[in-house]
Amino acid sequence: MSPQSPSPLVGAWFIGARGSLATTAAIGLHALARGIAEPVGLTTASPDFAGVPLVGFDQIVIGGHDVSETPLPHRAQQLAAGGMFPRELADAVADDLARTDENLRIAVAAGPTQQHDIDRIADDIAAFRARHGLRTVVVVDVSSTEPLPADHPAFHSDEALREALATPGLAVLPPSSVAAAAAIQAGAAYAGFTPSAGMSLPVLRARADAAGIAFAGQDGKTGETLLRTVLAPMFTARGFTVLSWAGANLLGGGDGATLADPEAVRSKLASKNRGLHALVGENVVAPLHIDNVPDLGDVKTAWDHVHAVGFLGTRVTLQTTWSAFDSMLAAPLVLDLVRALALAADAGQSGVVAELGCFFKDPWGSDVHAFADQVRDFTEWAQRTALYTQSETAPELEPATGSR
Amino acid sequence: MSPQSPSPLVGAWFIGARGSLATTAAIGLHALARGIAEPVGLTTASPDFAGVPLVGFDQIVIGGHDVSETPLPHRAQQLAAGGMFPRELADAVADDLARTDENLRIAVAAGPTQQHDIDRIADDIAAFRARHGLRTVVVVDVSSTEPLPADHPAFHSDEALREALATPGLAVLPPSSVAAAAAIQAGAAYAGFTPSAGMSLPVLRARADAAGIAFAGQDGKTGETLLRTVLAPMFTARGFTVLSWAGANLLGGGDGATLADPEAVRSKLASKNRGLHALVGENVVAPLHIDNVPDLGDVKTAWDHVHAVGFLGTRVTLQTTWSAFDSMLAAPLVLDLVRALALAADAGQSGVVAELGCFFKDPWGSDVHAFADQVRDFTEWAQRTALYTQSETAPELEPATGSR
Amino acid sequence: MSPQSPSPLVGAWFIGARGSLATTAAIGLHALARGIAEPVGLTTASPDFAGVPLVGFDQIVIGGHDVSETPLPHRAQQLAAGGMFPRELADAVADDLARTDENLRIAVAAGPTQQHDIDRIADDIAAFRARHGLRTVVVVDVSSTEPLPADHPAFHSDEALREALATPGLAVLPPSSVAAAAAIQAGAAYAGFTPSAGMSLPVLRARADAAGIAFAGQDGKTGETLLRTVLAPMFTARGFTVLSWAGANLLGGGDGATLADPEAVRSKLASKNRGLHALVGENVVAPLHIDNVPDLGDVKTAWDHVHAVGFLGTRVTLQTTWSAFDSMLAAPLVLDLVRALALAADAGQSGVVAELGCFFKDPWGSDVHAFADQVRDFTEWAQRTALYTQSETAPELEPATGSR
Amino acid sequence: MSPQSPSPLVGAWFIGARGSLATTAAIGLHALARGIAEPVGLTTASPDFAGVPLVGFDQIVIGGHDVSETPLPHRAQQLAAGGMFPRELADAVADDLARTDENLRIAVAAGPTQQHDIDRIADDIAAFRARHGLRTVVVVDVSSTEPLPADHPAFHSDEALREALATPGLAVLPPSSVAAAAAIQAGAAYAGFTPSAGMSLPVLRARADAAGIAFAGQDGKTGETLLRTVLAPMFTARGFTVLSWAGANLLGGGDGATLADPEAVRSKLASKNRGLHALVGENVVAPLHIDNVPDLGDVKTAWDHVHAVGFLGTRVTLQTTWSAFDSMLAAPLVLDLVRALALAADAGQSGVVAELGCFFKDPWGSDVHAFADQVRDFTEWAQRTALYTQSETAPELEPATGSR
Repeated sequence: MSPQSPSPLVGAWFIGARGSLATTAAIGLHALARGIAEPVGLTTASPDFAGVPLVGFDQIVIGGHDVSETPLPHRAQQLAAGGMFPRELADAVADDLARTDENLRIAVAAGPTQQHDIDRIADDIAAFRARHGLRTVVVVDVSSTEPLPADHPAFHSDEALREALATPGLAVLPPSSVAAAAAIQAGAAYAGFTPSAGMSLPVLRARADAAGIAFAGQDGKTGETLLRTVLAPMFTARGFTVLSWAGANLLGGGDGATLADPEAVRSKLASKNRGLHALVGENVVAPLHIDNVPDLGDVKTAWDHVHAVGFLGTRVTLQTTWSAFDSMLAAPLVLDLVRALALAADAGQSGVVAELGCFFKDPWGSDVHAFADQVRDFTEWAQRTALYTQSETAPELEPATGSR
Repeated sequence: MSPQSPSPLVGAWFIGARGSLATTAAIGLHALARGIAEPVGLTTASPDFAGVPLVGFDQIVIGGHDVSETPLPHRAQQLAAGGMFPRELADAVADDLARTDENLRIAVAAGPTQQHDIDRIADDIAAFRARHGLRTVVVVDVSSTEPLPADHPAFHSDEALREALATPGLAVLPPSSVAAAAAIQAGAAYAGFTPSAGMSLPVLRARADAAGIAFAGQDGKTGETLLRTVLAPMFTARGFTVLSWAGANLLGGGDGATLADPEAVRSKLASKNRGLHALVGENVVAPLHIDNVPDLGDVKTAWDHVHAVGFLGTRVTLQTTWSAFDSMLAAPLVLDLVRALALAADAGQSGVVAELGCFFKDPWGSDVHAFADQVRDFTEWAQRTALYTQSETAPELEPATGSR
Repeated sequence: MSPQSPSPLVGAWFIGARGSLATTAAIGLHALARGIAEPVGLTTASPDFAGVPLVGFDQIVIGGHDVSETPLPHRAQQLAAGGMFPRELADAVADDLARTDENLRIAVAAGPTQQHDIDRIADDIAAFRARHGLRTVVVVDVSSTEPLPADHPAFHSDEALREALATPGLAVLPPSSVAAAAAIQAGAAYAGFTPSAGMSLPVLRARADAAGIAFAGQDGKTGETLLRTVLAPMFTARGFTVLSWAGANLLGGGDGATLADPEAVRSKLASKNRGLHALVGENVVAPLHIDNVPDLGDVKTAWDHVHAVGFLGTRVTLQTTWSAFDSMLAAPLVLDLVRALALAADAGQSGVVAELGCFFKDPWGSDVHAFADQVRDFTEWAQRTALYTQSETAPELEPATGSR
Repeated sequence: MSPQSPSPLVGAWFIGARGSLATTAAIGLHALARGIAEPVGLTTASPDFAGVPLVGFDQIVIGGHDVSETPLPHRAQQLAAGGMFPRELADAVADDLARTDENLRIAVAAGPTQQHDIDRIADDIAAFRARHGLRTVVVVDVSSTEPLPADHPAFHSDEALREALATPGLAVLPPSSVAAAAAIQAGAAYAGFTPSAGMSLPVLRARADAAGIAFAGQDGKTGETLLRTVLAPMFTARGFTVLSWAGANLLGGGDGATLADPEAVRSKLASKNRGLHALVGENVVAPLHIDNVPDLGDVKTAWDHVHAVGFLGTRVTLQTTWSAFDSMLAAPLVLDLVRALALAADAGQSGVVAELGCFFKDPWGSDVHAFADQVRDFTEWAQRTALYTQSETAPELEPATGSR
């Protein structure tokens, strides 16, 4: 590699780096890099991406911050005990996880001002980039869902925000937005995988645009919502009117406990129903519940009941029961997002990357919710964007799956 | 209308014209023409078809043949009693049905040769066209599913076929193929809505191509298979490997009884699984049963169980339970097909219209099974084809739904 | 009939006499009395009750009160239009319903004191008994679920109650309890088919005991709860530990609207889970939701998800989806209760009839919730009680189903 | 223990001793005896059996025969790998399994006559009894389901049977019946846990009666059939008419492969539907399928769809989806049966023990299929039988769960 060549390495900085999702993504990345797992469950590993110069799995370095200090190898053992993956897998990548652990920082209690907190995280990200010689860092918010904050003038004016951030003792931003502001300040790409405020505040969106970073969001589309945005277009394509779409979600684990908080669940539910209303109309009756059922652990079971009318008023009912480890569905999407945003950065794109909507319940910059359309948009974007990456970029001959 | 103007009228000739499906299609067409039903459940009534010069619902004349002689108004009352639609609807269109009845012919017992039978049906179609001054006739096979015939040399050679058809007492073609041959001979467009042999025999496909008719098939995609071809692409887009997709179908009514015959059901099951294998691979384990449960009447209940593996071998299971009157799902598709094939004829198209795949379990001329892709293909085809219909064609200002 | 013979007639006085449930019960009773319906769906029509002198269906006279004034024949047409039963049935008993209408009284706005209201209803019941020469009147509360009242000293002391009832402008009792007090005052038997306070207030229970009436309650066990009290004993009999039992209920119609009120639903949900906890333990996690989905009409769809552990910690999951018109399940139980309480009265029983627990979610006087045990208790009670009815009682030769 | 005291030990001789079920039962027994597992999932461990002198789990010795030679500790590891139980459990009882292995005999290829085969097995059983000083041996057939044999005169006459068994080269009995005959000859108690012919042949039933052994059967009621015999009585108790009860079973593993054989599955299906017909009538439409879906492993998923009519012809539908490791449901029942038949032997009972019907799909000596009734019968039998065991019998102070 000549001095002027860009680095082959890309950083993935996880907000909530010791949570189930980040831990699973790390395990999976290490397993893929070692070639002991197949790239199953990743969109970017499909044959349609064969010619796209995506960063290889062995060229992604993980960092991040978390309030927890539990070592990653220990977290991996906990998740294996819950049945998420075989213990053998956690054992096989234990050394890799221990090395990744060295890149993780503690999200400490609030400093004197929120700007101080932002500086500190931005410095951590910059240090991570420098230490590993990364050509791009992609920050992904995979932390627990927060309650949505009440609106505030500082969410709409950069001046008001600057003032608020500098005021000692004032915490105008929720933690997810502090982290998003830090990503912008560090010039990192950003993906919001939770429904938390994060970068969705208008003032931060404006900062992100001005900073020229590539970003995408929001709230990973993994299970029930994925299914709904696959099924709803079927009804409309056949000219049916969907009258109601009711849903019940049961899950335990950390997510179940978080979502047992009515405030936290409110942002989740709003995000879950947004696509449905966009696809089948605002009048659809769509009650939706998330219940914390600790004995079910990290497996989420979702039951949906759809009622539609068609020709001459005939009725169709459809029930679906979906059962899966939510973190195991989400983890590959996180890796897909890191690869996609790194590609965007390589191609010099900035601003919201609307074509990444297939990964999100609430796609920024797009009103396309139908999953098949989103997948086509993403695929075409990747193939188009590939043409704009400079030929001297390292991974040009990289196969899509990153295995070597 | 000047002498040189094409007729505004199109004929729909149903093979099995007194069955549940044809009767329902007739009731629906009459109700739409009278403006007492909304065009719900039809693909061609969606806003995407607003600019396409489709034949209006009040410009379609129904004819056909059947082995049964039960008058249509009586059939309509039977179906209403089974809960398929309100009796009020059957009453409201009783006079229209009685007039349609005059266009129906008896499918008599076999004549001296099969060519004689073909001639007779072709003559019936021609007479129907002449009597109503139809610019196009679209023949749609909506008869009961037949057992698949054993292969025969006459299925592959026109000369062998001609000889066989002329041989007294020899019945080389199944009834569905006799009717298909008659459609070709009469120069009618053709749609095969059943899995029966119909026009799928190579020798008839060749005749149809040579005759320059537009045709499409095969086996209406109404319920469970529709759902499968919507869901399967979700798994592949996310990079999952589908291991098994098991299905159980319960239904009564006439279809339940027909499909209780193991021979008849064989062609149905083969057709149902074809798309699934094309979408998720030949290795998927896909047991499929259709049970005759008379007490369920014409409502079909289908349960599917899908098992897939994703990232790091994680398991997803999805169950779906679909419940609907199958004939009520199929009838609007039959009307869509009549309108689409009439459009093709108006535009001078001939041969297989592969872009009609969204209507079929086993799409002729196409290996696209993913429903979202099929819908896009159909929509784009209709918009493209609209440009090729001559501007002097009557229905140019016709709104898509045909209501006026 | 000699002067000293007891009347062959029994009255059924419905609180909420024009609601879906009471109307359905009335239609059914008239149809059974006319012999145009089979006694399907009634427990008391099973062969086990063949020798029990139950009142015949043509010997039950319906009365009651309601806030609505809609004539019963009109209510019947409304329900038929919603698909609950064929219009032909409503037509066939229209005259009977019109005659029953004459027995219905308006539940007027509150009078000067609640004692005044009680007197008025008690007088209505007494007049009903006298007018038809009824040997027994059974009051059944089938009105809409009320919010549970806050506790009050008058609920626990007869003296405090008397004082409160006599205080002008004070409404200490909810309407369901006013009606229950009237039943006691009129010496009628009583069944509480709703979870409303009704006769469950301690002060009214004491009054009922003192008055020597037979009574039973509470909250009809029709669908999901029935199913749960059938299934839960299976798990315990096999030594399984049930960890969670989650439920989602979807319904529209009047009940859906009532239960969309969080206060009204609270009493319903408490009642629904009581049996479950009694059967599988207080530690079971049992989230339960009732959603108002207007397009589903009076059909209730209930999904349950059960998770249990057995031998060596093995996991069992069971999902159930139950779909039925709730009023159609409840109406025969109301008739069963009228017959059973009339039998109790014939045999001179007073106080709570604990053996009627099979009809209730929250069985008064019993901690038996397992449905099979309740059915056996009821059957044995009926056979035992039959021996205590005097031989001169009219319906001694009455077959159990009342058809003649 | 004085010389005249009966031995405290009981033997369990498994036909198919290395299969999933027998291996799981052995692991569970060893874990219970060691006190490292709770007696969850066993009927005989419920509080109702507290006073019954059942043999303790540490007083049961396992023996048996099988065509396979795979060591039990290895089988246990295989099953653990399939997710049936944690590997830690298999490790913890590996030494116990190795010791049990020494009691297992190979079921060799056929000898010169079938009587020779019977003698050999009977000798093995007798040697097992003598070696361990067992007071009773209970033979349990837990082998793979066989095709049902065609009827034969030797199945009905002891003389004909004796002659046939002595004829060289003639194999009139299926293997399960050879083993049953050996149990009789050895004076062992017997339970038929499969639908195979086993001891159900009239000639063997007569031999068993004459030999004075206690026996019970047939075909373990573990999952779907258990559920059906719990639910069906609900419908009849409420006076509903069940019109159809359709079922689909998906499973892989060894059982899935065995039942993929249409002949083997025939006996299974007949047995599964017998109870259903007894409970809801012969006219119920009850299609039932078992599909081999290898990727599902040993987890069985069963979907049932029930359609019933009630009051005024109203329709109820119920769907159930049951998912569990079948062997894990069956294994505790096998231990329950060993304890129950040892109790019967202790009390001097002989002949069919009809009160054990709660364990079987096809209960010998009883036409009671309703599970709640069967459980009550079994409980009462155990309590009654306890009174007949001699007071000097060893395990009189044994707590029901056998833990000490």
